[in-house]
Amino acid sequence: MGRVSLYLRQLEAYLDQGLTTISSSQLGKPLGITDAQVRKDLAFFGQFGCPGIGYRADELSETLRRILGIDRDWPTALVGLGHLGQALSRYRGFANRRFQIVALFDNDPSKVGQVYDGLEVRPLDELCTTIAQRGVLLALLAVPAAAAQDVAEVLAAAGITGILNFAPRSLVVPARVSVVNVDLSVQLEHLAYKVQNTGPSGVSSALSS
Amino acid sequence: MGRVSLYLRQLEAYLDQGLTTISSSQLGKPLGITDAQVRKDLAFFGQFGCPGIGYRADELSETLRRILGIDRDWPTALVGLGHLGQALSRYRGFANRRFQIVALFDNDPSKVGQVYDGLEVRPLDELCTTIAQRGVLLALLAVPAAAAQDVAEVLAAAGITGILNFAPRSLVVPARVSVVNVDLSVQLEHLAYKVQNTGPSGVSSALSS
Repeated sequence: MGRVSLYLRQLEAYLDQGLTTISSSQLGKPLGITDAQVRKDLAFFGQFGCPGIGYRADELSETLRRILGIDRDWPTALVGLGHLGQALSRYRGFANRRFQIVALFDNDPSKVGQVYDGLEVRPLDELCTTIAQRGVLLALLAVPAAAAQDVAEVLAAAGITGILNFAPRSLVVPARVSVVNVDLSVQLEHLAYKVQNTGPSGVSSALSS
Repeated sequence: MGRVSLYLRQLEAYLDQGLTTISSSQLGKPLGITDAQVRKDLAFFGQFGCPGIGYRADELSETLRRILGIDRDWPTALVGLGHLGQALSRYRGFANRRFQIVALFDNDPSKVGQVYDGLEVRPLDELCTTIAQRGVLLALLAVPAAAAQDVAEVLAAAGITGILNFAPRSLVVPARVSVVNVDLSVQLEHLAYKVQNTGPSGVSSALSS
């Protein structure tokens, strides 16, 4: 799945350069992915390029955006305005891809009422109403680990369909709620593992999502 | 790989509770992983529990820490003290797992000299010397996308062995340098994809690393 995002990003760079058709090797090379893998991935989604010509760039971009679900808007709430939450509230990459943060929540009285990037932090007991009113679908969960499960339950009850969980613990939520965990320590452990298993003669890939 | 981190975290929770042996289902259940998968994963690393008894918790914890490379210290540098970098500099989860941030770098004159969590931000031209002197092995790269490749090359030249890359672009580095990309937009797209493919009758997992 991560590769589809990478393909789209690369494809958009080519579209900006004015390319109209693109080969699997053009798409894969800057990403360190073999053209065989690119063809296999895209065939899985029913995209077949023309042999010797390649894919139509605009068509493929359309398809990848639909696969990723970013041919639509995803109103997003951010819960937890600690250091990480504040950084997330200012992160520009989300809106570009149609994930727009439309509401901020925190229970800390020193945070409620503060304004980040034009949005006012509201207490958690307004979460349910606001999520319904604003049609919020996703939530970024950046609260401390000890609070994460409780807040996740409130979010699930409020009708959130997906949670990007930054708290270093697993969440138990109803099956209708999707969760993706972004545990930075786990990512760092993954890096240490790769470093440890890359000797001077080892082969390392610049890509790993 | 991500699962090994999750197993270790769960195992440590059990050790704190005083458990000395642990079954594959005890380990997997809170993580939403089947006991068959747990056994398969651990067998891959040469860990065989006793049928009907399970794994020795302390021994297994030792092995998992060795596999993850966190039975040693990983002095880490943080490059880029924007919003995300500042949040990372204050993140507590890293040091707990022996990833200690020992140096901060930024080229912005308004940032150089500032102190975050007891560390002073230094200009990038000191990077090479400091990395050698302090034995820094890993780097958190939190610079803007446009600067990421240049800084990655400086880090590689300075002898860094691994980069956790937060910039939304791929890095080209020598094979001896490992890279793990943490692109938050990609994670959010992954979440949107999961939500989109989880109907009311869909089956969703709370785990996905």
